[in-house]
Amino acid sequence: MASYRIEKDLLGEREIREDVYYGIQTQRALENFPITGYKPHKNLIIALAHIKKAAAQANYEVGRLNKKIADAIVMASDEILSGKFHDQFVVDVIQGGAGTSFNMNANEVIANRAIELLGGKKGDYLIVSPNTHVNMAQSTNDVFPTAIRLSCLSLADGVVQALNNLVNALKEKEEEFNGILKMGRTHLQDAVPIRLGQEFGAYARLISRDIKRIKNTLEELKEINMGATAIGTGLNADPQYIDLVVRKLRENTGFDLYGAENLVDATQNTDSYVHVSSALKICAVNLSKIANDLRLLASGPKCGFNEINLPPVQPGSSIMPGKVNPVMAEVVNQVAFQIIGNDHTISLASEAGQLELNVMEPVLTFNLLQSLEILRNVVTVFTEKCVKGITANIDRCQELVQKSIGIVTAINPHVGYETASQVAKEALATGRSVREIVLERGILTEEELEIILNPYEMTKPGIAGKELLDK
Amino acid sequence: MASYRIEKDLLGEREIREDVYYGIQTQRALENFPITGYKPHKNLIIALAHIKKAAAQANYEVGRLNKKIADAIVMASDEILSGKFHDQFVVDVIQGGAGTSFNMNANEVIANRAIELLGGKKGDYLIVSPNTHVNMAQSTNDVFPTAIRLSCLSLADGVVQALNNLVNALKEKEEEFNGILKMGRTHLQDAVPIRLGQEFGAYARLISRDIKRIKNTLEELKEINMGATAIGTGLNADPQYIDLVVRKLRENTGFDLYGAENLVDATQNTDSYVHVSSALKICAVNLSKIANDLRLLASGPKCGFNEINLPPVQPGSSIMPGKVNPVMAEVVNQVAFQIIGNDHTISLASEAGQLELNVMEPVLTFNLLQSLEILRNVVTVFTEKCVKGITANIDRCQELVQKSIGIVTAINPHVGYETASQVAKEALATGRSVREIVLERGILTEEELEIILNPYEMTKPGIAGKELLDK
Amino acid sequence: MASYRIEKDLLGEREIREDVYYGIQTQRALENFPITGYKPHKNLIIALAHIKKAAAQANYEVGRLNKKIADAIVMASDEILSGKFHDQFVVDVIQGGAGTSFNMNANEVIANRAIELLGGKKGDYLIVSPNTHVNMAQSTNDVFPTAIRLSCLSLADGVVQALNNLVNALKEKEEEFNGILKMGRTHLQDAVPIRLGQEFGAYARLISRDIKRIKNTLEELKEINMGATAIGTGLNADPQYIDLVVRKLRENTGFDLYGAENLVDATQNTDSYVHVSSALKICAVNLSKIANDLRLLASGPKCGFNEINLPPVQPGSSIMPGKVNPVMAEVVNQVAFQIIGNDHTISLASEAGQLELNVMEPVLTFNLLQSLEILRNVVTVFTEKCVKGITANIDRCQELVQKSIGIVTAINPHVGYETASQVAKEALATGRSVREIVLERGILTEEELEIILNPYEMTKPGIAGKELLDK
Amino acid sequence: MASYRIEKDLLGEREIREDVYYGIQTQRALENFPITGYKPHKNLIIALAHIKKAAAQANYEVGRLNKKIADAIVMASDEILSGKFHDQFVVDVIQGGAGTSFNMNANEVIANRAIELLGGKKGDYLIVSPNTHVNMAQSTNDVFPTAIRLSCLSLADGVVQALNNLVNALKEKEEEFNGILKMGRTHLQDAVPIRLGQEFGAYARLISRDIKRIKNTLEELKEINMGATAIGTGLNADPQYIDLVVRKLRENTGFDLYGAENLVDATQNTDSYVHVSSALKICAVNLSKIANDLRLLASGPKCGFNEINLPPVQPGSSIMPGKVNPVMAEVVNQVAFQIIGNDHTISLASEAGQLELNVMEPVLTFNLLQSLEILRNVVTVFTEKCVKGITANIDRCQELVQKSIGIVTAINPHVGYETASQVAKEALATGRSVREIVLERGILTEEELEIILNPYEMTKPGIAGKELLDK
Repeated sequence: MASYRIEKDLLGEREIREDVYYGIQTQRALENFPITGYKPHKNLIIALAHIKKAAAQANYEVGRLNKKIADAIVMASDEILSGKFHDQFVVDVIQGGAGTSFNMNANEVIANRAIELLGGKKGDYLIVSPNTHVNMAQSTNDVFPTAIRLSCLSLADGVVQALNNLVNALKEKEEEFNGILKMGRTHLQDAVPIRLGQEFGAYARLISRDIKRIKNTLEELKEINMGATAIGTGLNADPQYIDLVVRKLRENTGFDLYGAENLVDATQNTDSYVHVSSALKICAVNLSKIANDLRLLASGPKCGFNEINLPPVQPGSSIMPGKVNPVMAEVVNQVAFQIIGNDHTISLASEAGQLELNVMEPVLTFNLLQSLEILRNVVTVFTEKCVKGITANIDRCQELVQKSIGIVTAINPHVGYETASQVAKEALATGRSVREIVLERGILTEEELEIILNPYEMTKPGIAGKELLDK
Repeated sequence: MASYRIEKDLLGEREIREDVYYGIQTQRALENFPITGYKPHKNLIIALAHIKKAAAQANYEVGRLNKKIADAIVMASDEILSGKFHDQFVVDVIQGGAGTSFNMNANEVIANRAIELLGGKKGDYLIVSPNTHVNMAQSTNDVFPTAIRLSCLSLADGVVQALNNLVNALKEKEEEFNGILKMGRTHLQDAVPIRLGQEFGAYARLISRDIKRIKNTLEELKEINMGATAIGTGLNADPQYIDLVVRKLRENTGFDLYGAENLVDATQNTDSYVHVSSALKICAVNLSKIANDLRLLASGPKCGFNEINLPPVQPGSSIMPGKVNPVMAEVVNQVAFQIIGNDHTISLASEAGQLELNVMEPVLTFNLLQSLEILRNVVTVFTEKCVKGITANIDRCQELVQKSIGIVTAINPHVGYETASQVAKEALATGRSVREIVLERGILTEEELEIILNPYEMTKPGIAGKELLDK
Repeated sequence: MASYRIEKDLLGEREIREDVYYGIQTQRALENFPITGYKPHKNLIIALAHIKKAAAQANYEVGRLNKKIADAIVMASDEILSGKFHDQFVVDVIQGGAGTSFNMNANEVIANRAIELLGGKKGDYLIVSPNTHVNMAQSTNDVFPTAIRLSCLSLADGVVQALNNLVNALKEKEEEFNGILKMGRTHLQDAVPIRLGQEFGAYARLISRDIKRIKNTLEELKEINMGATAIGTGLNADPQYIDLVVRKLRENTGFDLYGAENLVDATQNTDSYVHVSSALKICAVNLSKIANDLRLLASGPKCGFNEINLPPVQPGSSIMPGKVNPVMAEVVNQVAFQIIGNDHTISLASEAGQLELNVMEPVLTFNLLQSLEILRNVVTVFTEKCVKGITANIDRCQELVQKSIGIVTAINPHVGYETASQVAKEALATGRSVREIVLERGILTEEELEIILNPYEMTKPGIAGKELLDK
Repeated sequence: MASYRIEKDLLGEREIREDVYYGIQTQRALENFPITGYKPHKNLIIALAHIKKAAAQANYEVGRLNKKIADAIVMASDEILSGKFHDQFVVDVIQGGAGTSFNMNANEVIANRAIELLGGKKGDYLIVSPNTHVNMAQSTNDVFPTAIRLSCLSLADGVVQALNNLVNALKEKEEEFNGILKMGRTHLQDAVPIRLGQEFGAYARLISRDIKRIKNTLEELKEINMGATAIGTGLNADPQYIDLVVRKLRENTGFDLYGAENLVDATQNTDSYVHVSSALKICAVNLSKIANDLRLLASGPKCGFNEINLPPVQPGSSIMPGKVNPVMAEVVNQVAFQIIGNDHTISLASEAGQLELNVMEPVLTFNLLQSLEILRNVVTVFTEKCVKGITANIDRCQELVQKSIGIVTAINPHVGYETASQVAKEALATGRSVREIVLERGILTEEELEIILNPYEMTKPGIAGKELLDK
């Protein structure tokens, strides 16, 4: 049978289970917000522990916190950093109160653990107080934004790395497929020849831009508002402390953090999170386009384009024997849709900021951390289980080029758009080849055609057979 | 050289060009809101004229407006209904003020025209006042919501008709293509056979649901809040007038309008517009899916699926001779994207309502009317210039079925999933046909196969060759 | 140390932990899709068990499944229905493959449990096969859509009930606050008087429309596509079985289910889910508006509107003593943003359907079930912990009415808009009351004003002091 | 009566009105796409003229176009650049065909005008051909993306300038209001004091970040894909020409353009437009937040916050005399919603790119240009007609600070969070002031309070009365 301790706050007393490290405010939040059932993200817990530790160190150094209490807070925080007590972070990811419940959850867990470390009993807040000591010179309104930034930065590292791996895999395919001629398509209609490697090269370059954009948005996150306290005016935060807490956080986390130039701005505005999310959204849009392309190019095997093969990773159907589906590309699409939807939620939450604070930060944070995490995860498996194993159906690619009418474009500069159109029209109507019709009509000679319709030449800038024109 | 008259309002005096029918408040709005450059939608102008006419009739009947003025207002409104003076409605579609500038624009134009009809000079508001007479017992906050509803209802008629025509065209194709066997595809991978007519039948049914949903949302629009005045309390609106103005509007417009049960609710809430927009969005999503399918099925002609042909409506390329693109399907996709984006704007605007009013109605209205209009327009041309002219490449469809491995599914109930999988795998690896392998391995006899692999049977519910199982 | 069994499928062999009930295909999915870390929703697991049970019953009755196997499948399914083995449903909520991994996870768990019940060892699929027996006459493409519908229907019951409770709570406040006069506001500017009860009545009516709309969308979900198999053609599904499986599901679940008229349509289209999501989105927009209003009306206590009090549920600040925040309203806003974003993801997923199937159903389902669940949860706590406890600051409401200039509107019909404007302007400039100025200027007599400015009359339709006009 | 000329293309002959400069392909597009009724944006027309001119110059210099024709094309383009013939650009902004109709509209108008300049008759394409000459070495697929980029760049200049002006206006208010103490609010609840200038300073800094972000995205637009022709392989485009056409465009337009490194990528991907749109969206979110704040702070005048006054720009109500509404802030909100919705459409359009091309560029372009234009327009009037004229109600601001309980936070470091909470609670319950209670309870002395509750100190970082702690 569980035993209980009594805690009290502004609103009265509550029984708290003796074995839990969180206290009355966390308990209230648990009851108030039974929304998603999802607990705080691991990286958010780590970030909160970093902040509490740095604040205790800073408060000690400016002489506001005595050594005993400061040490206990630091030690308790270090335990959390090492992975302990994460199950004590229990408040729902969607909650009212601008993150106060996240912050108080951290304050209470650290206070109670510090009390234990100092030989006291959980709940004896005269020894270490969640508000007076652990939260000293802090407010949810500087702690939580800083925690968002730290947790994003730590997750984003993996995102960038996963995207880099994807770019490398795409570039390897660019090289591997460099010599494979195939038809390019615009409007899903046969256009003019291209090399399969060029297609993968375009994907690689596209994602490279995403990496650059994402990295660029991360720079903004390094500006933190510790010391802002309630509304950015810094009430109750010593200027010396402000410098120190930022320095401690920078040193302890290894991120190149710096204090916000304008703390009022940094406390109330969430535009930098929307910036990160927007970059993720653009990347999601691009990945979805690539996934769509791969699924198209691999469509078939008998009734589709069938130019490439995606590696099989699981049986595709519970009823159709032998069917294998492009599931790794499909999951990329779906993660993309999730990230695009999340960006929407994040924008809505950001727009809802009012005056000195944006109280919608919890839902914003939930979506932003999710976007980062699922992007990293999906890009990793997509690279490993799909892109790296793609193979080309060289014969099929070649066959389609030969059947295609699109090569008529190359004779355009030699005979004019109107004549070329007539050839194309006849080729389509009769099923005969462009070459055949051009020769029959005496439009060009066999020698000229040989030069002009060199397929490889058609995939590089320049007028195939330009020398003929110059004659 | 333009000559001017002087008008004044709460904020002071302004010169107004003598030849224009609008007055000082419209003039201010013109200067305050040079945003999009788009003028009020025709159907919105018509709706406002209907409202002003009905209000004058009602106010006359309850004895608040004398016959002379009432008649002049009705006559001026009738002129607008007949298409005159639309160029005098000049305020931007995106404007602050919850539609006050739309309403005042109408009040001023009608007042000045009424003054003229009574032999006065424009601007002599002692004869007919925009506020005291034309706007009598009204507020922007009942006039504008009612105008939104009326204009939507009138536009929606065309939308429903266009969608009905599309459904009929799709059903004709369902019948026309009923006998054409082709491969069905899931995950863009060959699945099992289907008839081309079944695909068009599914499209028809999908859009039928959209029609039902759209019609359903229109019902809500018939509840209007005339008589609510400023905030729904009906201040300054005689109950007898309220009944009358609704009845007049119903009679004059032919729409089955009725007065809102709760005028406070009807004045501040915009959920019914979001409901309409949501139904349009769902329809847009569905049309986009259909457009995507048609573009896929028509891909080629040589390097794609090439199962159907979309009628050519314009040359497709400025550089590639003979190329024709599925432009009528593409424009459907684009209109769909616009409507989906508009729905987003509409939701944002609706969420921004505060207390007794939603002041974001202008941008909401702009997007809603645009969605209705472009949906009607695109569905009309899509039906006429694309769907109706679609033809099937019967031989191609048949050829793909014969090549496909997917028909192996039909032998599943006879031999089990695992055996069937092995057959499929071998067929794919070797390029040999399913039939050949099954016979060679002695899995089924030729007679059994004949029954089981009857392609037409495969497109209807039931186990092909069930009688063999029962043996 | 874990021991393993060997299973094999189309792609080869894999070791599977002896103690787990899922098999090789689930195992592959686990490895392929480490995306969100979230496991299948409880209601989805229940829905899958219902489907497998009904299918076994139907297959038995049409003579395709022997009694022993059918009974074992039914028994295993019943165990899942009673809450057992839910931890064996392990595939990620975002996954490629159109739900095949959800379906195979269910097939494998039920097969292995059925094998055990028949005295066999897990993995001995000769006794009960996941594909041949548990999935008999089914495909992911009819099982999964049906499971989506069932799980939505079961969750939606709670949503409707929670919304009904909210409406009742709002109506109680409507009655309780019926006599409290306060200023109405449009554009956040003082408008004309209203009763606080009228405001809550408008909220009640707004949410009533949402309930009606949500219920309306649920009707569509009752059309299920069991028997469609792979693409809706019903290949391998006996017509008799199709009737039976629907009937069994209807009887077993209690939902008024019926078979889809057009199985091809019902298999490939996801518009009905978008319809549900749209209704949830509209409800979210409306709840967010109400939450915004309540936060505004409760703003203060000293520097805001302060017309109402929201019940305190937790301390509001880690730094500002005594601060209590409107956290229950804030969490409503945030859930609203999440649902609106989810609707976006759902629309994207729906638009991405191609030809005979929409493979993006997993992400769609994840978002739809989440929306339903968090809406139910937040509405429940919002009703209980916020709406029911709202109290009014009657004196404050009254004081603001008396100070306000907005009551000048009531004299409008008696003196004309222009004169009333001048009074308003002077009242604002001088800080004197409307009454005072009207009397001083001799515009109306004290007796007339007494009649016209009766505050209660101002909140009902009609011209206050109309009899004066008729004189 | 109109007279006609006959033109023909791939699909046959058509009558074209003699007086129009566009030709048969434009005519077909007119008939195919009667969607929005909106004509091409002026900046897009200018961009197309620039491109056609530069291409003619480059083609002449590489010897592909003779001087006479090149000169005529340049001259016709220059006329368009000077504002002529814009009414000949008639194709709808939403159209199928990836912009081919925009490109052909330009080709035809320029060809016909060039023909005239050379003494020929419109339609005599032997003199100057729209395809062979005006479109030489070009494709819609390099022309149109380049035109999008050029038109965005030219519009974006005005956006950046307008935002700079806004930042300056906000900074002026920051300085002007620097000394005005007022209550800060979080959660719409009284928090701690702030200076009004600090609030405007935070707005200024927020928008400054937007400017930086927008500018950053514009850099990507300077990479153009002229020479890519159909799919980026550069077929039919001489490398020398590619260099030249980019150089000419750079010189003629003054924008720092450069040729894309990877033409295949640059032809098919639209991520850079989404990037621009995302930056506009973030800016829109931020502007909406600021507009919301201003409307809140100006709420009243009698029943709201009433801390600031927005300059009146038009009467606010057709029924409530003297009412003035924050219409310039409201129009900012609405433009923000439009831009956010547009961003959604743009993302959808971008995601729909397939293989070598994104055919959804027309709708993308329509939305992107609209977002740029309405953002510039609204920011301009918002700055001039709202921000610059904002005044502060100093007395009201001060009065609220004095009434507020929030100042209790400042005594927190001196007495602890729990004691301070009790003071706050009693102050709220009794209506007595914080100061009074603290003194009565003997918590602090009058001298200490004087130091601690110095209001100005409370708006700067630091512990008010820190020296007392150090005692």
